[in-house]
Formats: sequence, C-alpha cells, structure tokens
Amino acid sequence: MSKYWSDFVHQLEPYVPGEQPKMSKLVKLNTNEHPLGPSPKVLDVIRGEADERLRLYPDPDSSQLKDAIASYYGVQRDQVFVGNGSDEVLAHLFLGFFKQDKPLLFPDITYSFYKVYCGLYQIDYEPVALDQDLAIAVDDYLKPNGGIIFPNPNAPTGRLLPLSEIERLLKANTESLVVVDEAYIDFGGESAISLINQYPNLLVTQTLSKSRSLAGLRIGLAVGDAALIDGLNRIKDSFNSYPLDRLAIAAGAAAFEDQEWFEKGCGLVISQRELLNKALAQRGFANLPSAANFIFTRHPQHSGESLAKGLREQGVIVRHFGKPERIADYLRITVGTPEQNQALIEALDTLL
Amino acid sequence: MSKYWSDFVHQLEPYVPGEQPKMSKLVKLNTNEHPLGPSPKVLDVIRGEADERLRLYPDPDSSQLKDAIASYYGVQRDQVFVGNGSDEVLAHLFLGFFKQDKPLLFPDITYSFYKVYCGLYQIDYEPVALDQDLAIAVDDYLKPNGGIIFPNPNAPTGRLLPLSEIERLLKANTESLVVVDEAYIDFGGESAISLINQYPNLLVTQTLSKSRSLAGLRIGLAVGDAALIDGLNRIKDSFNSYPLDRLAIAAGAAAFEDQEWFEKGCGLVISQRELLNKALAQRGFANLPSAANFIFTRHPQHSGESLAKGLREQGVIVRHFGKPERIADYLRITVGTPEQNQALIEALDTLL
Repeated sequence: MSKYWSDFVHQLEPYVPGEQPKMSKLVKLNTNEHPLGPSPKVLDVIRGEADERLRLYPDPDSSQLKDAIASYYGVQRDQVFVGNGSDEVLAHLFLGFFKQDKPLLFPDITYSFYKVYCGLYQIDYEPVALDQDLAIAVDDYLKPNGGIIFPNPNAPTGRLLPLSEIERLLKANTESLVVVDEAYIDFGGESAISLINQYPNLLVTQTLSKSRSLAGLRIGLAVGDAALIDGLNRIKDSFNSYPLDRLAIAAGAAAFEDQEWFEKGCGLVISQRELLNKALAQRGFANLPSAANFIFTRHPQHSGESLAKGLREQGVIVRHFGKPERIADYLRITVGTPEQNQALIEALDTLL
Repeated sequence: MSKYWSDFVHQLEPYVPGEQPKMSKLVKLNTNEHPLGPSPKVLDVIRGEADERLRLYPDPDSSQLKDAIASYYGVQRDQVFVGNGSDEVLAHLFLGFFKQDKPLLFPDITYSFYKVYCGLYQIDYEPVALDQDLAIAVDDYLKPNGGIIFPNPNAPTGRLLPLSEIERLLKANTESLVVVDEAYIDFGGESAISLINQYPNLLVTQTLSKSRSLAGLRIGLAVGDAALIDGLNRIKDSFNSYPLDRLAIAAGAAAFEDQEWFEKGCGLVISQRELLNKALAQRGFANLPSAANFIFTRHPQHSGESLAKGLREQGVIVRHFGKPERIADYLRITVGTPEQNQALIEALDTLL
C-alpha cells in the first residue's frame, strides 16, 4: 500500500502464474511447457545473433518474424501482430478492443488472466458458465456484448470447440470482436486463422511458448483483419516501440521455418497424452477429453488438494487451482516426456 | 479505423521511434546506441543460455538480474523492478502512479513518449517550459501536481540537473511521486538512486540500452522505496507475468558484473563527445552542454532540416525532431566511434 499509487492499484488482483521452482530434480508438470527443447536450428540462430549487433535497437516492426508467420499461415504481413509473449498481446487487445459500453463475455472457467486484464483496464465483463460437461456452448454467447474471448482448446479444461461452432458464433455475432486464444491449438485442433479473411471481427492469438517450446523466450502473436492489427499497433506504439528483442525476432522466425521439428514435437506430445489418458483412466480418473498438452482430470475418491500435495511430496508438481467449486477437485497435468509421465503415474500409485 | 476498436484508440498519437534503417553502410547516429558492442562476457552468457532450457518459462521475478542490480547500487532486491526495456517500465509507472486528480508535470521539451503514455492511459498532464537555456528549472515544478517526471540528463537536450537540485525538489514536493528517468546518467551524471532511502516518493528508472550497449535485448529497471516497487509489481503481474526472457535475465546480470567493460565504454563515449563538441564548435555550431551520449546542437546559419537532409544524402543519419518551434533547428547527434564521428564532421563540412 502506498499513497503514491493510482487509486485503482489498491483493488488489483494480479495473476498468479504457475510456480517456477528453482530446485532441480523435480518432475515439473505444472505450467504446460513442452517436454522437448526448442528446435536445434532455433538455438543455432540465437548463438549466431549473440554478437556486437546487440548494441543496436531491434526492428520495431519485427518484420522478419511477421514474414515467417505470414508465410506459414498464408496471410499478409499486415494481418500479423507480434508481442512479448501472448500475455502482452492479450493485454494490448483487452485495452484496444474491449473497453466498451457492453460487458466482455468469457467462460466462467478459463484462463484466469482474462479477469485480471479487466481489472487492470477497468473493463466490464460477464462470465458465461461452461455447460455441465465443462464445455463452451456457443448459444450462451448470443446476447448483447462488448466482445467475446475464449481459449480454444479452453484452459484449463483442454476441451476443443470445433471450427464449425466458431464459425456459427461469428455468423451470429458480427457487431463485436471475437478473440480465439489458440495457445494450445497445435496439439489437436484446427486454427481459426483460416477464417480471418471472411470475418473482419475475428482475431486469433497464439504463442510460441507451447508447441514451439520457447516459453523461455517470450513470443506471442495475433492474426486477423488488417484494421484490427492496425489497432493493436497503435496500442503497441503507445506502450513500447520495441517489444521483441533481436534474439527473439530471429529465433521466432526460425521456429516457424523448422516444420520437421515442430511436427515431431507435437506428435510426441499427442501420443504421450493418449498414453497418459489411458493410464489415468485405468486408475479411476475421470479425464476431460483434451486437445491440449495437458490433461484436466479428477479422481472420484480423492480430493484434488490431497493428490496435488501427495505428488509434491514425491517431487512431482502439477497445477491445482482449487476454485471455483466446480473444478476444486481437478488437477491440470502437463504431458511430459515418457520418463516424466511414468514418474507421475508411479507417484500417483502410492496415493490411490 | 475500425468499429471494433475501443473509442480512445482513434485519438491515440503513438510514439514514433528513431528510424532503424535496414540498409548497411550507414553512419547511424540517430538513436543513441552505444558505439561499442556489449561486453564479451555478456555475449558468452547468452550463448551459454541458448539451450534446451528455453522450453521453460523464465523466473517471473527475474531474481538473478534484480540481485545484480541491487548489489551494484547497494540497495535491497525489493527496491528493484525490471521490465522489457525502460519504455515498459515507464508505461507501467504511468498507469500505476500517475492516474491522479491533479495533472502530471514534465518538461515541454523532453522524451516525447511521456505524452503518449498519457494518451494511452488518459492521464491529465501539464508541460512545464524549459528555461531560456533549455534547462529544467526546479522552481517551476513547485505547484499542485499529480506527479513529476523528467529525464536526467534531459532528452533530447542532454542537459544535466545537479543532484542537489533534485534533492531540493524532493524536499519541497513530498505529496506526489517524482520519477527521474536516468537513461543517460552513466555518461556524466550522478544517479539519484543514492537518495531513495531518504525519499519514499522518489523512483529512478534506467535502461541497459545505452551505457551497457544492450538496446537489442530490451532491459529496463526502476529503483525506489519497496512500496513503490510493490505497486509496479502489481501492474506487471496484471499485465505479463514474464516480461524478461531467460537470455535477457542472465545477460543483464552479466552486464552489471562487468565493471571494466562498462567503464571503458562510458570513457570512450565521454572522450569522443568532448572531441565532437570541439569539432562542432569550431564549425560555428552552438552546442548545448551534454552529459549524455549525444549532442543537441544547431548552426546559426543553417536550418536543422537542411542539415539533416544533407547528412542523410551522404549516408549519415542524425535525429531532427522539427518541433516544437524552439528546437526546430536543432539536431540530436549520437556520439559514435572515432570513425563515425569523423565521417559526420566530413559530411558536415560539405554542407557548411
């Protein structure tokens, strides 16, 4: 508390990220990182960029990275925005698009940063309950709103909304922005980027922290109609001219160029997810169907809190949100390497 | 323009950074970058960090970097804040501290991003005119205000306000925050960080883009009373949990640890600045006294516009702001390497 703060700062409830413990030897399955490292070509690019050019500012437009993304998705450069992690991209779009007279809609169980951005920018919002299967029901969003945002697949449930349902929403909701946050799309979904030329109110965000294994480098992106990207650029250029450093620009571009590594990494996660799904189900867990690199699950006979605690005592960290009530017993378990997943199962077996 | 933008976006006037031309062979003296590259030890650290650990999120608290800064300045870790370039640090502090009932005060001729942040966050401000010598006069700030910010040395003038004058301001202005933006302090000034334990309303910002030659990496910092830093953390944790990537955290710490390189680099800039000052004065330029890594100067017989244009035609780029009127004929010339400064002088000689 300080009398020098702006008034609203006292009311902020900041986001609490998953723990980044500094101890080694942990089986860290709590923040949905990729089990493999980044592409070796990406690492080579970083080493090659680590020279005296770091004295110079980066390209404020990150053109090299935007071109790589535009080429990958078959869109134009002016339909691409990049930022210092997708959290920065999300923050900018909340401020740039969602300060409206009507409330922003998002699922009641979803990425918990959304309501934090609303607090930061004093945006009115209305949570929309997931259905009884913890899925997004598009019809529930067909009401007056100042914008709609949801992750697809949703977090922390992992449930995927089919592209046809997103298109149905876009056809019915034309007067406000619809943001599809595709942090986990590469692990089993189909990107809505294919729809941006048809729907000028569709913005799709992604991150390089998950399927491209660059959480440590902080790169996020948005793709949509050029007028939406122009709005984001106006916010960005009023905040920080150079959000991406020289290493991130070059490395991000290289990540989009190494398709072979990308496919191999996603393939590993998907096959491990299915093995883990099966192993958990065999032990009585009720898993939600996941299209992400994590599994959201609960055990009918054990509380989420006790399982999370018991795992931690054995050096296995998973995410337990605890609230709201409906998900109090769920654990969100990142799909790890075969060895990590095995260690998780062995630790669970001591608890069940 | 888009109907999906928040209303205020239409009114934004984004900051326009100095040009980052993609052509090579330019003598680039327009964005105050360091003439030497970063410390070789910093480059080694980056190469060493470019491995599979990039799959993991960075430490959201950037503790390693904060510890290096705290140790360098003899302060506590909880008195240090870091961000993705000092522009991000400034953006956060404008939102976190300067949304007040009374107007924010800053010089009429100063870092032009300040008024952009005010536009972004709808903060009321009142420019305070520099005196007739284009210097900050502390007495002009002794009036009701919701905060005070100025660079020291000021940009783009390069003029230094002595620490005794800053302390006089702090003694008189106790009810609002005073931010001293020390982007250029290492080239000839004395940091106000020495005063933070006495004045709970003093916040000092710095950047690693200038004296530590890491413009390409994006690292900024703020030092002040722990309650101020707590306020900044609340904003940061409501915006982006991980603003600094793993490479920047490690490289930034290494930059603060290589004192020898730092002193050598600053020494080169200062000695070259004095040579350049002399060469410009000999040619009739009226230089403002500079404590920064640039010289703000005009020639009584030549317009700033014509000189900037003539230099550009010879491949030498300097910054010409053009407005306001009082500085329309000034050029802001970054101090370069001996070779770059020589090329500048030779190009000027063809124009005078």
